[in-house]
Amino acid sequence: MAPPVVAQTDVSIESISAYGKARSTVKDDKTLSDEELKDIDDYMRASLYLCLGMLYLKKNPLLKDPLKVEHLKARLLGHWGSDAGQVFTYVHMNRLIKKYDLDVLFISGPGHGAPAVISQSYLEGVYSEVYPDKSQDVEGLRKFFKQFSFPGGIGSHATPETPGSLHEGGELGYSISHAFGTVFDHPDLIALTMVGDGESETGPLATSWHSTKFLNPITDGAVLPVLHLNGYKINNPTVLARISHKELESLFYGYGWTPYFVEGSDPMTMHQAMAATLEKCVKEIRGYQKKARESGKAFRPFWPMIVLRSPKGWTGPRTVDGHYLEGYWRAHQIPLPEVASKPEHLKLLEDWMKSYTPDKYFDKEGKLIPELAKVAPEGNRRMSANPVANGGAIKKPLRLPDFRDYSIEVKPGKTDAPSMSNMALFLRDIIQTNPTNFRLFGPDETESNKLGGVYKAGKKVWLGEYFEEDEDGGNLALAGRTMEILSEHTVEGWLEGYVLSGRHGLLNSYEPFIHIIDSMVNQHCKWIEKCLEVEWRAKVASLNILLTATVWRQDHNGFTHQDPGFLDVVANKSPEVVRIYLPPDGNCLLSVMDHCFRSANYVNVIVADKQNHLQYLDMEAAIEHCTKGVGIWDWASNDQGEEPDVVMASCGDVPTHESLAATALLREYVPDLKIRFVNVVDLFKLIAHGSHPHGMTDTEFTAIFTDNKPVIFNFHSYPWLIHRLTFNRKGSHNLVVHGYNEKGNIDTPLELAIRNKTDRFSLAMGALDKIPGLGNKGASAREKLLNEQIKCKNEAFHEGIDPEYIRKWVWPN
Amino acid sequence: MAPPVVAQTDVSIESISAYGKARSTVKDDKTLSDEELKDIDDYMRASLYLCLGMLYLKKNPLLKDPLKVEHLKARLLGHWGSDAGQVFTYVHMNRLIKKYDLDVLFISGPGHGAPAVISQSYLEGVYSEVYPDKSQDVEGLRKFFKQFSFPGGIGSHATPETPGSLHEGGELGYSISHAFGTVFDHPDLIALTMVGDGESETGPLATSWHSTKFLNPITDGAVLPVLHLNGYKINNPTVLARISHKELESLFYGYGWTPYFVEGSDPMTMHQAMAATLEKCVKEIRGYQKKARESGKAFRPFWPMIVLRSPKGWTGPRTVDGHYLEGYWRAHQIPLPEVASKPEHLKLLEDWMKSYTPDKYFDKEGKLIPELAKVAPEGNRRMSANPVANGGAIKKPLRLPDFRDYSIEVKPGKTDAPSMSNMALFLRDIIQTNPTNFRLFGPDETESNKLGGVYKAGKKVWLGEYFEEDEDGGNLALAGRTMEILSEHTVEGWLEGYVLSGRHGLLNSYEPFIHIIDSMVNQHCKWIEKCLEVEWRAKVASLNILLTATVWRQDHNGFTHQDPGFLDVVANKSPEVVRIYLPPDGNCLLSVMDHCFRSANYVNVIVADKQNHLQYLDMEAAIEHCTKGVGIWDWASNDQGEEPDVVMASCGDVPTHESLAATALLREYVPDLKIRFVNVVDLFKLIAHGSHPHGMTDTEFTAIFTDNKPVIFNFHSYPWLIHRLTFNRKGSHNLVVHGYNEKGNIDTPLELAIRNKTDRFSLAMGALDKIPGLGNKGASAREKLLNEQIKCKNEAFHEGIDPEYIRKWVWPN
Repeated sequence: MAPPVVAQTDVSIESISAYGKARSTVKDDKTLSDEELKDIDDYMRASLYLCLGMLYLKKNPLLKDPLKVEHLKARLLGHWGSDAGQVFTYVHMNRLIKKYDLDVLFISGPGHGAPAVISQSYLEGVYSEVYPDKSQDVEGLRKFFKQFSFPGGIGSHATPETPGSLHEGGELGYSISHAFGTVFDHPDLIALTMVGDGESETGPLATSWHSTKFLNPITDGAVLPVLHLNGYKINNPTVLARISHKELESLFYGYGWTPYFVEGSDPMTMHQAMAATLEKCVKEIRGYQKKARESGKAFRPFWPMIVLRSPKGWTGPRTVDGHYLEGYWRAHQIPLPEVASKPEHLKLLEDWMKSYTPDKYFDKEGKLIPELAKVAPEGNRRMSANPVANGGAIKKPLRLPDFRDYSIEVKPGKTDAPSMSNMALFLRDIIQTNPTNFRLFGPDETESNKLGGVYKAGKKVWLGEYFEEDEDGGNLALAGRTMEILSEHTVEGWLEGYVLSGRHGLLNSYEPFIHIIDSMVNQHCKWIEKCLEVEWRAKVASLNILLTATVWRQDHNGFTHQDPGFLDVVANKSPEVVRIYLPPDGNCLLSVMDHCFRSANYVNVIVADKQNHLQYLDMEAAIEHCTKGVGIWDWASNDQGEEPDVVMASCGDVPTHESLAATALLREYVPDLKIRFVNVVDLFKLIAHGSHPHGMTDTEFTAIFTDNKPVIFNFHSYPWLIHRLTFNRKGSHNLVVHGYNEKGNIDTPLELAIRNKTDRFSLAMGALDKIPGLGNKGASAREKLLNEQIKCKNEAFHEGIDPEYIRKWVWPN
Repeated sequence: MAPPVVAQTDVSIESISAYGKARSTVKDDKTLSDEELKDIDDYMRASLYLCLGMLYLKKNPLLKDPLKVEHLKARLLGHWGSDAGQVFTYVHMNRLIKKYDLDVLFISGPGHGAPAVISQSYLEGVYSEVYPDKSQDVEGLRKFFKQFSFPGGIGSHATPETPGSLHEGGELGYSISHAFGTVFDHPDLIALTMVGDGESETGPLATSWHSTKFLNPITDGAVLPVLHLNGYKINNPTVLARISHKELESLFYGYGWTPYFVEGSDPMTMHQAMAATLEKCVKEIRGYQKKARESGKAFRPFWPMIVLRSPKGWTGPRTVDGHYLEGYWRAHQIPLPEVASKPEHLKLLEDWMKSYTPDKYFDKEGKLIPELAKVAPEGNRRMSANPVANGGAIKKPLRLPDFRDYSIEVKPGKTDAPSMSNMALFLRDIIQTNPTNFRLFGPDETESNKLGGVYKAGKKVWLGEYFEEDEDGGNLALAGRTMEILSEHTVEGWLEGYVLSGRHGLLNSYEPFIHIIDSMVNQHCKWIEKCLEVEWRAKVASLNILLTATVWRQDHNGFTHQDPGFLDVVANKSPEVVRIYLPPDGNCLLSVMDHCFRSANYVNVIVADKQNHLQYLDMEAAIEHCTKGVGIWDWASNDQGEEPDVVMASCGDVPTHESLAATALLREYVPDLKIRFVNVVDLFKLIAHGSHPHGMTDTEFTAIFTDNKPVIFNFHSYPWLIHRLTFNRKGSHNLVVHGYNEKGNIDTPLELAIRNKTDRFSLAMGALDKIPGLGNKGASAREKLLNEQIKCKNEAFHEGIDPEYIRKWVWPN
């Protein structure tokens, strides 16, 4: 074997078994008095009884009658595996919340851990307050059990219906990044975060441990992770539960944490170990915070974390019919799946449930006895009542400077400016005006995306080491407002946590790599959509995603950096929660961003190029255009008062530029053509009225696009998205959509456009091909266009740049 | 500060600066003789000269003439940042390849590192062999320089055009997982893998270090990672370069590696340190392999890795105009961007380039002098000529058992069987028959996906610790054929590496979470598409993705597990490389899988449910149906020889079941209706003929779907995908597509279908709504259907299951 790992700590445990008396880093077996020990154990047992009840029972909730098959749900669904470890942790934190008056949010990372948190919410009384029919009596308990994993009821994750949850955990990997997002700018908050050892194998989770390098102990709260070494996933051991103790310890030191181990299965010694350990962690957190806050000097401590190793399905039967259950993957889901068909299993279940002695904890009416109820904290200190988890309710509005003050002065056809630079000033001032309520997130691309101006108001948070070079334009700070790590997953997770806990933010990213977080954005959409169905949930701020470094300007990055398909993913989500904007120029970008910042409970996706562009609309015109979301640009049209021969339409800034140039070419080459120019800012305007709140009626659609004229539509993304949005419009067969066709390399902008037929010449030729009756006039214009295209293309190839001279074709005005 | 990390090793370096004389774990400054030292340094300098040449020059490649602006490319593109560190590593490995006759593949992880590997390929002569116009003379060199990051030329990543590359590195995060995939079942291969410290921040990379728990030292080769602590990303320091030495060391011990440090900037001492360190690593690798192979006992060593800390832009100017360049993020891309406008910068560049003394290394004709050429290995030992990187050329065909032998015996309308179970037997025997040429990959879901039968032929590879429980159905083995870690990124990366290096495989995954790797699949599609344009690249096996646990059967997982939108992402990729199949039953699944396994250079996506289903087609009929890809099912139609009143169409197994039931309902309720039943297996059959090789002609399309009858199309995924595929078909306005509409919860299958209108009743009612002239007959049938639907729905709600009695509606036959 290799040189041993010799991370030297005060832990000298070599066993990696989950069984036996507690072994722990912190040696103190007298933290709890006998009474406290009993209370905590009783509370945990009551909670575990509820967990099993949720999995199995639809009647006879307190087992007053002998358990029979008819008391069981017809289909047994739900998960037992991580419940005990989570309940154990939750209960121990309750003691400290009361002792130190802590503000703690519980985040449940392991998959399908809902019974643990829901049972706690029920015991705390919060569940019955929020859902009065799930009252604290026998009938309420019966309903509480029955609804779980039952059609029309609630799911097996910490879904939006779960009081105290802002992290569902349906898709694994985001518990730590969500937790950090939640505690940023919440200096008193502790996010007690259960991390599944299965979840830990995911990439997003594996890198999110590094979030400590971005947390300021003065202005931010703390994350207290409990890595739950539950040992197994669905059908496999977990990696972290099967490596040596020293590897595990080294790993977390390496990630920048101080790991405290609590391991074993014997309840009473485990309670003492956990009580002592959790208390030490809380004191360390408060100690670091005190030190930093009193001195005014932020630093990066090795924040404490707990490694809790307990058997999967802990407190269940170790074996059943000669096969391992507790402490094995068989305990993952329903631990005894055959209770309905095997009477001996039914009996086993009954005995097991009764072993938790529910009748000691619930009185005749089914109410938790007061002696036990007092173990929980009170009011909003109850973790399932923490207001932070219902972030919309504590959200302060974003204070927005007037975006009109950042207007680009536009001389139509003349002003050539980058749309981002004024946006950067707007953003800078938003940061300035909202010093604890807004952050900007991005994966190392903020400067590259031409938004570096924001650093004047809020530098990049950095708690890593500093070098002398950093003084030379590094823009790093211990306390800042911009969050950058090269992990789209981490910045998205931070932003989600930040927004869900009541604040505001923006993610800026290269367009091609936003696909990395397709799945996260999907899950966030699902969360905020379901929240709309939960009465007590208040709307959170929208999650804003600004995409730039777009497909059309990837001359030196090439084919790997060309993928505008994120819009397709977003467009599949519920129309209640998704919005997509493609502002054609800088003033439209400002107007759109202002609108997005004011909105709530959406995922807003904004696509805008960061390079120089011709600017078209002054601010007044931009506001009007963006408010409508789609419109005819009269100044670029010559069909006033008449039927057009063709509609030239565009969506996206680069495509608009080319469409305008195509329009100019057509008007030069075929002067008597009647051309209508249409621009789309708000993509969902195109969809049928009933399919999205923004969808135009057919009458509106026809008034703009006609239903019988050719429409040459130049689109930023893959062309098929336009077809799927418009398939049922009358006249949809007249739509010829140009867009990215997955053809590219390290092309000049013009060459890339030509490859994909989104260039001015292809568009103009496309129009001529579709307009009937042009005869020789059309053929001759077409030939000229083709020659121009070839000429431009050759020069573009030759020079390696979009040649200056093609600007002559730009809309002359 | 917190308790210090005290990972105790023989490294006692506290500085984390990249500057100064070499500091290294291995202390041996005499590994290289004076001559070797000189050779290696010269070779590196020649290579770095080429790197700068690629960035800047289009003429005067050897600077025979004084450097002038007209020698420069008009637009300067490309990256200098990581070049020196990569060249340094590459050159040192060359020495060991020759000394020990090693088989080494170089994988370049850091972004935009192409100049390093391409310059090496040129020096090795491989580049000129592959691209004769880039010959080893002045004109060849000029072309070699000019093509780089130039339109029509090659990109700045290790693109498919790069000899020796199977990892482009355009999107960051996959170098380690690709490397492992490459060395599985290649026992003699060493994948020398440069890992960028920016890349290291990504989630996929962060978890992929754990791949060591899945590598067998007897049957697999080795990965030798060189973590390049280059210090900076585009505009930020990297996390790993700014944590303490001990944290870094602990982290990699924790990941299961033995980190050897080589740090500094002084070339000569760095050469000695790297030579000694790399040699130690290679010897350790060979030692572990020898021990395992001689004893026949596989174990998990702490494999060696190197942490190379060198300044970003190493060997460039430290400062320019008072700003840091080398050793700072400014060295990321073009180090001196203003050479064309600032004469003093031009002079600086000239001096800098000449400081590498190219005229000492290249003779008058521009050829590398023989004394230096001999430093490289020969033939296929040259890393840029390693045949593994052109995996298609060494690929052995997969030996496939006859899939017909696994047929499900079908009694139409009676056989109710899971489609996966026979697939599992087919897969099992493929594994058996191809013991070193095929692996099955999945994120802990193989058993859950009902493919556990494969373990009989190839258990799950597991090099972690073993517990006694594992004997009880754990199916773990030191040497196995199934690869499972709960990281979709890692298994996908392994599979990509495995396929690109000439082998075959299949990924099985839950449908909802395949979005996690949208971006990886996009990038793989782009890679294999570009490979088609590279003459010397042979086609690799297709990358096969089997999706199950589909959207329609998520009763206990709920809304988070419902997303069939991966197909939209795949459909955006080039038609040359993507194929999507939705077999309606078990025999079709077998036929489709056989086809996919025989195919080359595609990404095949196969969607099939894992639950019990009615089985429709015997094997002969299945083969015929799948070969056509779409067809009319005569046995379910009654329009023979006549025009149908309606076409009932389906794509996907659950939707087909419902469509058939709807057809049965219609035929029962409105017996004189003429119904045609169509099923689509091969999704791209629907698209226009010219848009995809599988697309039907309009004539074929009309022959099946008609162009004037209502088509009630029940689709597995989001309905809009069908609209985008068929938008330009005549009669597309008659298509009514039912599919997943993002509406769901923990619903019974029927309830979920009703919510999304994909159930039999909604389909049948939809048909009645569209068929003209039905009058009262239609209205009365519609009412009956609605009542049936309500009744079923209520019972479904009540019982929590798809009630048994609805089976009476199943296609009776």
